[in-house]
Formats: sequence, C-alpha cells, structure tokens
Amino acid sequence: MPVEVLDHQLKEYYTLALEVAEKAGEVIRDAFNKEKMIDTKSCAADLVTVTDQAVEKLVFSLIREKYPTHKFIGEETTAETGEKLELTDHPTWIIDPIDGTTNFVHRIPEVCFSLGVTVNKEVVLGVVYLPILNQMYTSQRGQGAFLNGEKLTASGQTDLKQAVVICEGGSSRDADIVEKKIANIHRLVSASHGIRSYGSAAANLCRVAQGAGDAYVEYGIHIWDFIAGMLIAREAGAVIMDPSGSAIDLMGRRVLAASTQSLASQISSVLTHIDMGRD
Amino acid sequence: MPVEVLDHQLKEYYTLALEVAEKAGEVIRDAFNKEKMIDTKSCAADLVTVTDQAVEKLVFSLIREKYPTHKFIGEETTAETGEKLELTDHPTWIIDPIDGTTNFVHRIPEVCFSLGVTVNKEVVLGVVYLPILNQMYTSQRGQGAFLNGEKLTASGQTDLKQAVVICEGGSSRDADIVEKKIANIHRLVSASHGIRSYGSAAANLCRVAQGAGDAYVEYGIHIWDFIAGMLIAREAGAVIMDPSGSAIDLMGRRVLAASTQSLASQISSVLTHIDMGRD
Repeated sequence: MPVEVLDHQLKEYYTLALEVAEKAGEVIRDAFNKEKMIDTKSCAADLVTVTDQAVEKLVFSLIREKYPTHKFIGEETTAETGEKLELTDHPTWIIDPIDGTTNFVHRIPEVCFSLGVTVNKEVVLGVVYLPILNQMYTSQRGQGAFLNGEKLTASGQTDLKQAVVICEGGSSRDADIVEKKIANIHRLVSASHGIRSYGSAAANLCRVAQGAGDAYVEYGIHIWDFIAGMLIAREAGAVIMDPSGSAIDLMGRRVLAASTQSLASQISSVLTHIDMGRD
Repeated sequence: MPVEVLDHQLKEYYTLALEVAEKAGEVIRDAFNKEKMIDTKSCAADLVTVTDQAVEKLVFSLIREKYPTHKFIGEETTAETGEKLELTDHPTWIIDPIDGTTNFVHRIPEVCFSLGVTVNKEVVLGVVYLPILNQMYTSQRGQGAFLNGEKLTASGQTDLKQAVVICEGGSSRDADIVEKKIANIHRLVSASHGIRSYGSAAANLCRVAQGAGDAYVEYGIHIWDFIAGMLIAREAGAVIMDPSGSAIDLMGRRVLAASTQSLASQISSVLTHIDMGRD
C-alpha cells in the first residue's frame, strides 16, 4: 500500500534537506584545500576519502534524529556494508556525500553534496550543493528547479548536430567497459557541437537544468549520483530516461537527460547501451 | 636584432592588458544571455558570433590608439583576412576575443577573453578573463601567476596513474582527426584517474595553473588560444612543451601542459602526436 505524505510534511523534509546540505557543505569546504587520505574502492580510479564517510555519517545522524523511522541509502554506507540496495515505498533519504570525489581529491571545484528523497519510489525533492562554488540547486516535485533561488530552464535544443553533450570516461578501468564508453564518446563528438566532462553526475545534471549544455548521458552510476540532479533537470524542463529510450530505472545504473524528447531520442539512437548491472 | 623593451614599458603593457580585458569582459557578459547570431568557419562545429568579432575590433582599436606601431594577431582578423600568420620580434598583442565560443553559444560559463603579448617571439604577459565567473587570471614573465590576485601553484603531481588530464574532442569533424583524438582520450582515460573537458584551451591552462587538474593536452589549437594561458600555467610551476616532448612551437598548433616534467613525459609517451599543420 502506498505511503501517504502530506504537503506540510514534504515542506519539512525540504527545510531539513537544505539545512543538512549547508552543514555538509561546510565540512566539504573545510577539507577541500587540505591534504587528503585517499582510499580506493572497486579499482584504482574509484576513490573515497574520510570526508565522504564523515559527511554521510553526519547527515544521516541529523536526519535520523528527526525521522527515526525513515529509510536511508548512502554511497559510503552501501560500500561499507555491501548490502543489496532496496528501494521501498517508505520515505527514503538518498545521499551522495561527495559526488565528484576525484574532483575533490584533485581540488577541482565541481564537488557536490547530493540529497534526494523518494516516497513510493518516486523522487519528491532533490538538492545538489556545490560548496566550493557556492551553488545551491534545489527542486521539489511540481515546483520547478532553482539555482540559489533563480528559476532554471533547460536549453530547449532539439537537434543533436547543434547540441553540446556532457559525458564521462567514468571510474571503471575494465578494458571492455572503457572501450564501449570511448566508442560512445566518439559517436557523440562526431554527431554534435562537442562534448564536455565535469566529473560529477550531479553537477552534470544541474548543468543540463540550467541550459549550460543540452544533454548528459552516463552508464555505471548509482541512484545516489543522479536522484537529486534528475529531479532538478526534470523540473527545469529536461527529459529523463534510460539511455535505451525506456523509462528510467532508479536501480538501473544509467541515465540520459536531454533538453527535449527529440534530442534524447537522437542521442539514444547513436549510443551502444552498456549494461553495468542493476543495484 | 632583438627589440629592447624596458621594465616600465612592460608594466604599462600589463596595465593596458587588464583594462582591455575588463572592457572585453563587459561586452561578453552583456551578450551571454541574449540570442546569438551564429556563423560557422572551417566546419559545422567551428563557431563564430558577432560578439567574437566586436570584441576583437574593440580591443585592437584600444591598444592601437596607445601603441600604433605594435603588431597584432587576432583569431577573427586572421579568419577574415586569411593572411599567413607571422610572429616577429616586435611587441605583438595576441588575442582570442572569446576562447570557448561553443560554450558562449551554449551559455556554458567557461568563456574566456585571452590576451598575450610577445616580445622577441617570447611571451612576456598573459591575461585570461572569464567574465561570467568573474575570474581574472594574470601573469607577467618571472613574476608568478594569479587568480583575482591570489597566487597560483600547479599540483606537483608526478604520476600519470594518479593524475586528472584535461583533453578535448575539439572542433574538427574530419573523421581521421576525430579518430586519432578519441584514441588519445582512450589511452588517457585508461592510464589516469580520469579526464575532464571544459571546452576552452585558455580555461584549461588556467585550471592546470591552479592545480585543479594536473595536465592538459590538445592538438589543433592556435597561438591565440594558448599563448596567455601557457604563461599563466608556466608561471604557476607547470611544464609547457610540444606534446611530442620537444620545445613548444608557438605556431605548431599543439600544446602539452603538465604539473611536472615527469608527468609531461608520461603523457607524451602514451599519445599519438597529431600533425594539424603549422600556422
């Protein structure tokens, strides 16, 4: 049976989301210019730092204090426990403490705190905060998307030949995966005005939302990387789908965001759709 | 016979460079959010707007007023006249009115005004201004590099496996060139922490200067794209060379910037060195 959450409750979630984003941002900002202890996860290019873990713990404890019965999905908790992810109908706070950890390690400013809340397996709010750049992207379902309070609108571009597409080499170093990703980049460069890579799924989705770039596609990411940015892009008018053209699968580890349906279809048709497993 | 330019004269050049950068920035900022009339140059992905042309004319006329005997090299003047470029010993003002024209057209904020001055064919000052982001990068030979007055230092990274490398798909749509560029991106992704693409040579060099990314390599660019950023990166401690490992050729249409000599050598050794002709 679906869970019912009232409007005033959603408003409270949103207020708390902004508060914890600010607190997470402070921790990230303090650590940004310091030396970092770096550890690796799945491979030598998949990085994690103590700050990722500290931010996730801090944020979860702040939210749990207020909503002890809510569910939580976090990148670092998942990495530590290795438990199978399960998205239920319950209100669920989904967090990437630092989206763009490689950027963080390399003092590249595109570093995001990402927080999305789902109810009945649908995202109802999304906040992406870039503390180094002081950019707070916010969205509530049905209420538009904003950057520091200013309303965002996707570009409206309909033609791949006239589009800039954001895509990434990614952190997998499996030779077969890298080869497929590079083949996709090759097709996108050839078919468009060009590609861009910023190293953060959340930041990439926010760029599509503000019309700074027309589309973004990536394979191999997780729900915590894209849940908040996905709502921000959608609320700014962008189309969100699985890269194959079917409906987005929140556990499907891949996303295509485009300013229009037409552009999304053109991008989908030139890509090889890489299956990196479901979460 | 080499030209002699005294220190106080260099200082005057630098003061004027800052003044014209501010003025160019105003024009770019005013045009950024408006509809743009777009024209193409060598191919469908090689863009130019009336703003590129207006900024170049404005800046050249301001400098010529003060230094009527100096030489000038500008991206748009070169495109219009089709004259063979010639770099002489005379003081020469080298300008890219908008480096990152595709970004400008797509309202992507990484848009640069780039100005370098050479004397005796050596760069003596470089200014890169990103008016949308309010970032003014400055350098004078032997005096360090600065972002809004704060001193910059390249990352010091020595190991390609631990590096982030900035590289670009570029604006050529010649199938053979694109294929070689993509093969290079493939090798860089496989060998490093990852790649980034920001769509502006000048901004890319400034990122290396500030240690936000460890290296940048590109084939097919021109002296006006890299002359200012090159000095900024070098003055921040980065190594500048031709991607093949030989000394930089200012008319050679390619550049490799890396935080250290060791990193530069490792990057050079994994790349196919694309010859896109000399200017």
